[in-house]
Amino acid sequence: MEFKGRDIVSIEDFSQQEINHILDVTKTMEPLAKIGSDMLKGKILATLFFEPSTRTRLSFEAAMLKLGGSNIGFADAENASVKKGENLADTVRTVENYADAIALRHSLEGSAKLAAEFSKVPIINAGTGAEEHPTQAFTDLYTIRKEKGKIDGLKIALVGDLRYGRTVHSLAYALALYNVELYLVSPETLRMRKDVLETIKTKIPVTENADLDTIMPKIDVLYVTRIQKERFPDAAEYAKVKGAYKIDLKTLKNAKKDMIILHPLPRIDEIAAEVDSTPQARYFQQVGNGVVVRMALLSLVLGAVK
Amino acid sequence: MEFKGRDIVSIEDFSQQEINHILDVTKTMEPLAKIGSDMLKGKILATLFFEPSTRTRLSFEAAMLKLGGSNIGFADAENASVKKGENLADTVRTVENYADAIALRHSLEGSAKLAAEFSKVPIINAGTGAEEHPTQAFTDLYTIRKEKGKIDGLKIALVGDLRYGRTVHSLAYALALYNVELYLVSPETLRMRKDVLETIKTKIPVTENADLDTIMPKIDVLYVTRIQKERFPDAAEYAKVKGAYKIDLKTLKNAKKDMIILHPLPRIDEIAAEVDSTPQARYFQQVGNGVVVRMALLSLVLGAVK
Amino acid sequence: MEFKGRDIVSIEDFSQQEINHILDVTKTMEPLAKIGSDMLKGKILATLFFEPSTRTRLSFEAAMLKLGGSNIGFADAENASVKKGENLADTVRTVENYADAIALRHSLEGSAKLAAEFSKVPIINAGTGAEEHPTQAFTDLYTIRKEKGKIDGLKIALVGDLRYGRTVHSLAYALALYNVELYLVSPETLRMRKDVLETIKTKIPVTENADLDTIMPKIDVLYVTRIQKERFPDAAEYAKVKGAYKIDLKTLKNAKKDMIILHPLPRIDEIAAEVDSTPQARYFQQVGNGVVVRMALLSLVLGAVK
Repeated sequence: MEFKGRDIVSIEDFSQQEINHILDVTKTMEPLAKIGSDMLKGKILATLFFEPSTRTRLSFEAAMLKLGGSNIGFADAENASVKKGENLADTVRTVENYADAIALRHSLEGSAKLAAEFSKVPIINAGTGAEEHPTQAFTDLYTIRKEKGKIDGLKIALVGDLRYGRTVHSLAYALALYNVELYLVSPETLRMRKDVLETIKTKIPVTENADLDTIMPKIDVLYVTRIQKERFPDAAEYAKVKGAYKIDLKTLKNAKKDMIILHPLPRIDEIAAEVDSTPQARYFQQVGNGVVVRMALLSLVLGAVK
Repeated sequence: MEFKGRDIVSIEDFSQQEINHILDVTKTMEPLAKIGSDMLKGKILATLFFEPSTRTRLSFEAAMLKLGGSNIGFADAENASVKKGENLADTVRTVENYADAIALRHSLEGSAKLAAEFSKVPIINAGTGAEEHPTQAFTDLYTIRKEKGKIDGLKIALVGDLRYGRTVHSLAYALALYNVELYLVSPETLRMRKDVLETIKTKIPVTENADLDTIMPKIDVLYVTRIQKERFPDAAEYAKVKGAYKIDLKTLKNAKKDMIILHPLPRIDEIAAEVDSTPQARYFQQVGNGVVVRMALLSLVLGAVK
Repeated sequence: MEFKGRDIVSIEDFSQQEINHILDVTKTMEPLAKIGSDMLKGKILATLFFEPSTRTRLSFEAAMLKLGGSNIGFADAENASVKKGENLADTVRTVENYADAIALRHSLEGSAKLAAEFSKVPIINAGTGAEEHPTQAFTDLYTIRKEKGKIDGLKIALVGDLRYGRTVHSLAYALALYNVELYLVSPETLRMRKDVLETIKTKIPVTENADLDTIMPKIDVLYVTRIQKERFPDAAEYAKVKGAYKIDLKTLKNAKKDMIILHPLPRIDEIAAEVDSTPQARYFQQVGNGVVVRMALLSLVLGAVK
């Protein structure tokens, strides 16, 4: 297992053994996140965000700073050379002269893969197209393992937009490597993409089109995603669907006491504010885990840890 | 007096004793601003600017860097997750996982107070709504004390837009804690907000609607603010008013030799360029004082100094 | 020769002896670019980019970080105080309180000169108007000397938009200090500006309106620039011209084996992708040289090296 110089493009590129190693390294980062480290002193991360994402960008930058490194980059393509018509391959071959690693956010599927082909420095996919967001998937897995003590044996429900939400695809692929039962809960028009579904069904038990109330008493992890208004042809359809997948205290009435609720954030209103103070709510802890996961990934691909 | 972990939301939250302590700590920061310090090594400040303000943002970031800390953040809400509809409480509970303190600029009054209620890390108000800009008020007070050797006993004129300018409100509240005489000079439509006026009049002598030429010979501090065109119903009205409150060499003819002129900047043309080279002009020194004041505030709330 | 505190506004302000010294210092920066340095620890660079330029901004910021310094700034004027109508002189007199040097990008010619007149800290011109881009010219010269072992005696062709491209003007002035032969290749409407041409023709042999195929076998350096569509009155005219100045394998058929191809980047399609893998292509190495050149310039004007 060699991580130095490696790209992190897709969760599918990692074996279960490799994922477990990343989660183990992440655990060793927890104290460093508090006291700081000079592990990456002199190293520079370029955060190239062709699509804005405050959360993911700040998480990467905080991770780099906590390890003693530093950051350059841009927060949206508007201010970037791409306005002059430059292609991504040229951008990458330019920025590799400025930085030791590149975190890339882009609206096009396949862009991280293309960048990795041209780049001499590691490319970390920070969310591309509607398909991949591997660092979020590592964050989700780490949160589950930290909170539940394990991943194997869990019953996990994915709720909301399973079609366009990029985090659930990366997560579903990763979970399929473990011994879990998966429940998919979504509006008809936002069901899990066929290609993802076919792949994971060959590996783990998947219950499609599950009813949230019915499964609530037996699930260990409730993973909620944002339902985006713009995915619906008309407002009435959206309003109807939105309500049906909103998590509030009533929805949680029959939940296990030690179930945990995750959400990649930002949320609109798919989780009611009243849920924030329940013992099950773990989505803000999940945000904190995102920083230590990225610390682990950066120190691995930059060769600071094995 | 405990500052560690404290929010800096409103100047009204501070006693005169506390303000004096902050100004004393600021003085100790002057040499560190030149030679640098590692006092905040490993600490991260998040500058969340939902409204653009180059000056204030760069001042905070420079302060952090001079103390050995580092910065993450965004310069305008356009690139932030708020575009996806996230509320401020969620943003704060996310960013507190990335940073040790948050400097917040926002167009809504009360936003810094709300953020402080949700945040585990100190919130520093970097200008909210038309009401509060406490770090600028500390800067103004420090500049006055540094230049005049004291605050008590001074005659101070506030000139320009006293209604919408957020710096003058914070400053007026703070000055009312000292033994000063205040003169208010402004167009009829831009007079000091009633609530601020009522509060300060119970504490210090205030002369409303003062004539600039008449008071010029006796004042010690001339505090000028920007008159914004968009506050006026028609252009003719603006043109008339603008000229009446412009400071030039003629205006200053009868001023004391040791009077000082301050301005929170940016200025449009309320102070003529010819004034820049007078011994009274102190507004660019005031900018430099803003950095040391913010160094003091950051080191206090982060517990690096008592 | 004293560089500490000096502004870098125009390549014309430097003697050949000074340029050679800068190139010598640049060479000493090569190992530091790899292993890092604390030479500028505690120093702050402000990158004020009133016009967006990812490449140049990131190059400056990487240079500063590799020397142990840090950066503040803005990437476009949209988020800056200039929106409130502030003039550049005030911006400079403000930012000099935050930073030890200022890298300025601005659409107006003369803006770097104006800034230098008002600033107490060194101003480095990072591209102003259509006339000057001195740090790119130093990068070009350094790349030529590094790749060819010398500048004197070379035959150099400048190809493309010689009228509006700001890099070729700075470069032409600099080359005129050396013993080189210059060939100018451009569409009729994009020929070299008269004032630049008159100056350089008094110093070195210049062949105007050269034919690329004819000169190809004898030139040592092929410097290609972007032809911007918006410079042409109609699309047909642009399409015709564009093709005539596109460099591909066929164009290079009769080129010397040790000729080098440079381009300030970004490119649109004036160099075909197939050229990237030829031994002559040096434009991506040129990008890397831009970082070490800026390390040299920053350490010189900040007094870290003589």
